[in-house]
Amino acid sequence: MKVECTKENLKKGLFVVSRVVGSGNPLQVLNNILLKTDQGRIKLSSTNLEIGVNTWVGGKIEEDGALTVPAKLINEYINNLPTEKVTLESTENSTLKLESENYHTSIKGLSHEDFPLIPQVSDEPFAKIDAQELKNAFAETIWASAANETQPEISGIFMGFDQDQIRIAATDRYRLAERIAHLLEPARGTKEVILPARTVSEAYKILNISSGEVEIYFSESQVLFKFDETELISRLIDGSYPDYRQIIPKEFKTESTVEREEFIHALKAAALFAPDSNNVNVEIKPDGITVTASSMAAGENTTKVNAKVKGDDNSAIFNFRYLLDCLNNLSEKTIVLKMINDASPAAIVPTGRDNYTYIVMPIKL
Amino acid sequence: MKVECTKENLKKGLFVVSRVVGSGNPLQVLNNILLKTDQGRIKLSSTNLEIGVNTWVGGKIEEDGALTVPAKLINEYINNLPTEKVTLESTENSTLKLESENYHTSIKGLSHEDFPLIPQVSDEPFAKIDAQELKNAFAETIWASAANETQPEISGIFMGFDQDQIRIAATDRYRLAERIAHLLEPARGTKEVILPARTVSEAYKILNISSGEVEIYFSESQVLFKFDETELISRLIDGSYPDYRQIIPKEFKTESTVEREEFIHALKAAALFAPDSNNVNVEIKPDGITVTASSMAAGENTTKVNAKVKGDDNSAIFNFRYLLDCLNNLSEKTIVLKMINDASPAAIVPTGRDNYTYIVMPIKL
Repeated sequence: MKVECTKENLKKGLFVVSRVVGSGNPLQVLNNILLKTDQGRIKLSSTNLEIGVNTWVGGKIEEDGALTVPAKLINEYINNLPTEKVTLESTENSTLKLESENYHTSIKGLSHEDFPLIPQVSDEPFAKIDAQELKNAFAETIWASAANETQPEISGIFMGFDQDQIRIAATDRYRLAERIAHLLEPARGTKEVILPARTVSEAYKILNISSGEVEIYFSESQVLFKFDETELISRLIDGSYPDYRQIIPKEFKTESTVEREEFIHALKAAALFAPDSNNVNVEIKPDGITVTASSMAAGENTTKVNAKVKGDDNSAIFNFRYLLDCLNNLSEKTIVLKMINDASPAAIVPTGRDNYTYIVMPIKL
Repeated sequence: MKVECTKENLKKGLFVVSRVVGSGNPLQVLNNILLKTDQGRIKLSSTNLEIGVNTWVGGKIEEDGALTVPAKLINEYINNLPTEKVTLESTENSTLKLESENYHTSIKGLSHEDFPLIPQVSDEPFAKIDAQELKNAFAETIWASAANETQPEISGIFMGFDQDQIRIAATDRYRLAERIAHLLEPARGTKEVILPARTVSEAYKILNISSGEVEIYFSESQVLFKFDETELISRLIDGSYPDYRQIIPKEFKTESTVEREEFIHALKAAALFAPDSNNVNVEIKPDGITVTASSMAAGENTTKVNAKVKGDDNSAIFNFRYLLDCLNNLSEKTIVLKMINDASPAAIVPTGRDNYTYIVMPIKL
């Protein structure tokens, strides 16, 4: 292999593929990225055996070939390089020679034959979605999944395809975030899958630097996201996702519309006085919401938040982190807090948007 | 005590005093800051028994008094507060009531009588220096002192006052940074002291938000820096600082003038190929500097850096971290690297400035 490439192109490609690679894997090739010429471009690939990423960057191909090199080392080397261009050439002993102006470097690599095959997925896209829409949908849900869960289903993110929608959901049993994302055209069927949280979070990071359209492909046990110049392939989680829709209440007794930032400030103030329990009390009366917390050691806080209230007086105790997770990940100026009583699920929805619901259980003392 | 204060003033004052306070000290009062009315202003104080900080902020004093409250809690509370003003009032049981618009809060504190006395230092300034000059001098030296040193003298920073200069020096035996700082007027005598590195680093952080003049006071075992609205008091380190001047070579065999950024890039590239040893080879020939490093595992790198060279060819092995520490903390476009041979101290000086010298020992393999 011999290719010439701009530093910027190479840097961008390395940035995309390097995220899933570790640096301390005892199987050295899993710390490496694969560089390979591919139809006039340079293909970079990485995998951690659960997730694989391929990306393509432009360059001048002088000789076809392939080689793997340590991801961390080539990343740091290219990032530090002050030159505009670099020539990459594989030499004997699986070494990569990098030449650019005054910089002469050899990086020890491993043969491309040692690199795990990243599986191919079906060649027909199952669904197409706008990159921004998918990014927003992930941003509003992924943090709600269960960390370190013994029940693997809810450690992942649910995606249910039906006509021109995906229902994207995440829960840890105590709270649930659901976002309906709109597809660019009807999906090729109905399908329910569970994606590892890590996969969605890697896809989210790629979406941050993508635009245009994303194609989603499936095989029996795998998903492929195809972005601009990048593919992300991941296994799916086996099992069936809990039927969470049944716990979303149909009706509430109290609805209060409140400025999101104001509510956040009040919760953060209360949070300082709930250092051990995380419990804050949220009380709704006709003139607004009152947030309170107190602790023997720290003291106490009461904050009044203006709100437009419809329905009954109400109050319940919440884990402030569960409320803040949702409020911090929305962008609307106002949200609606919906309650039934101190033992039934409450809901947060953004004002003026009906594609997002957040459900949170009160704390029973 | 009852005072009204703007959030911005209080936030700034808390920021300054909170640095030296811990939050996990078993002696609770050492996690607290002291709030005290003082001649029409609010005085905030903190101490870790080695360093004490006092700062004053404006406010409306309605009732004189004093109280201590947990630094972390009041800091986080005030930082989160969206209001412009806040009223602070001490109530029975050493509690601080904070009132501002919709926010009603009580923070449990401790009596001001439990707060350690921050000692008074002499009332005559020993020296006066421009804040910017002192900040720059600290920035170019403090990182060179010995961390976790069994010999306490060199864990600190040396300050030698003589006429209108301070010699500020730090060393860990393998390298030495010396900066001559200019006083605004001759000092009230000659004096040599050693300051704890933590003290200098706290002073540096206060200097970052200070301007104008800094006064330096001494008592037998203590130093006081007086900034705009802030005082920092610290113990001094006992003992006498090594006579480091004798190791600074008077003459060198080779002097090469090189662009600082270019040299940094070359060292960082080499550093990637010296992962275990930190050793890079620096070779000087008439046409420039060549930096090389290699490792069995990673590969090898050679970078040529353009330089104006006077004197003999030369080469030596250095710990790249010791070179980068110095180069990263200078701001000049070019520096001069001076060498004798591969076993004698080398020097780095910034071009066009004679108040700074960095000495570094080569590695003998």
